[in-house]
Amino acid sequence: MIRTVPIQTKRQGMLDITARVQAVVAESGLTEGLCTVFIRHTSASLVIQENADPSARLDLEAWMTRLAPEGDPHFTHHDEGPDDMPSHLRAALTSTSLGIPILDARLMLGRWQGIYLWEHRRRPHEREVVIHLA
Amino acid sequence: MIRTVPIQTKRQGMLDITARVQAVVAESGLTEGLCTVFIRHTSASLVIQENADPSARLDLEAWMTRLAPEGDPHFTHHDEGPDDMPSHLRAALTSTSLGIPILDARLMLGRWQGIYLWEHRRRPHEREVVIHLA
Amino acid sequence: MIRTVPIQTKRQGMLDITARVQAVVAESGLTEGLCTVFIRHTSASLVIQENADPSARLDLEAWMTRLAPEGDPHFTHHDEGPDDMPSHLRAALTSTSLGIPILDARLMLGRWQGIYLWEHRRRPHEREVVIHLA
Repeated sequence: MIRTVPIQTKRQGMLDITARVQAVVAESGLTEGLCTVFIRHTSASLVIQENADPSARLDLEAWMTRLAPEGDPHFTHHDEGPDDMPSHLRAALTSTSLGIPILDARLMLGRWQGIYLWEHRRRPHEREVVIHLA
Repeated sequence: MIRTVPIQTKRQGMLDITARVQAVVAESGLTEGLCTVFIRHTSASLVIQENADPSARLDLEAWMTRLAPEGDPHFTHHDEGPDDMPSHLRAALTSTSLGIPILDARLMLGRWQGIYLWEHRRRPHEREVVIHLA
Repeated sequence: MIRTVPIQTKRQGMLDITARVQAVVAESGLTEGLCTVFIRHTSASLVIQENADPSARLDLEAWMTRLAPEGDPHFTHHDEGPDDMPSHLRAALTSTSLGIPILDARLMLGRWQGIYLWEHRRRPHEREVVIHLA
């Protein structure tokens, strides 16, 4: 089963989409198998990270901003503004696809794991995540 | 088939789990298919790297320590000590899941490839890796 | 279905292999499912990135060269030359496997997404990519 899930982002940063993915799993009726999550973009990406303390997420976002900053004088690609090229770098360092086993109709995430869509652009975007279940 | 494999880490660094994963493949009787390896943590991760010369692994570990160091004054999240936040950064840059094709009942790894569980915390931890075979 | 695709690289950098992967999908006759792409090396890797403007690719390549540069005095592993260790670092930061859903016999890539084999060594290499379809 394949389902395309539209996700509206509101700002730069990590958006918890765990419940959205789990809802597709529940709806499918699949009790055991593999869930593949794929994002159809190169300026937004996927990452599994801690979902308990928001400070871990904020520190990760801020660190990535320092690692791949806007305004690097080496950049030649800035068709869509100063956040264009950093968004590609940050996407390349994280994930475009994730594979998560399913047992008892639930994603086998660890207790502290959440699935995040990481919006790397500053402005809101309409994103598409594809979920494959088998 | 899904199998949860407990792995006890002894220290920070990369632990070769190739034989553990291959053993699950052998036990399953599957001769051709896909092996998905998933780690249920956000302060430990997976990576496929060179298994021949230990110096490559040691250089990679040391470089990551410099890229995402302890003691960064920007960090606000240190509930579990100075190695807490760096462990999340290092996990975000590597992998939470890996997909490896199987042929003739063996993982189709290249000659120099090993599967590593990368413990990012300083203290020993009980980790769980989930293996899905289909 | 599993197919091993040999790919000859000519130089360091990102090589668009989207058409090669799509050709294997087309040949398989599979109309809906999951395509897993796996690279059997630790000094070359996979990444999905923008395929429209070459400047995005060039900026990404150059940035990675600065992030994990040759000649780092900390490196102890340089059996195969100064580009040996940086190639492992760059591979660890990007992907060894990718999972891409298939619908209507086509990879469900976004409009601007291309699949790239990233050769991290300076000299041409014969690389192997394994494609699993199910």
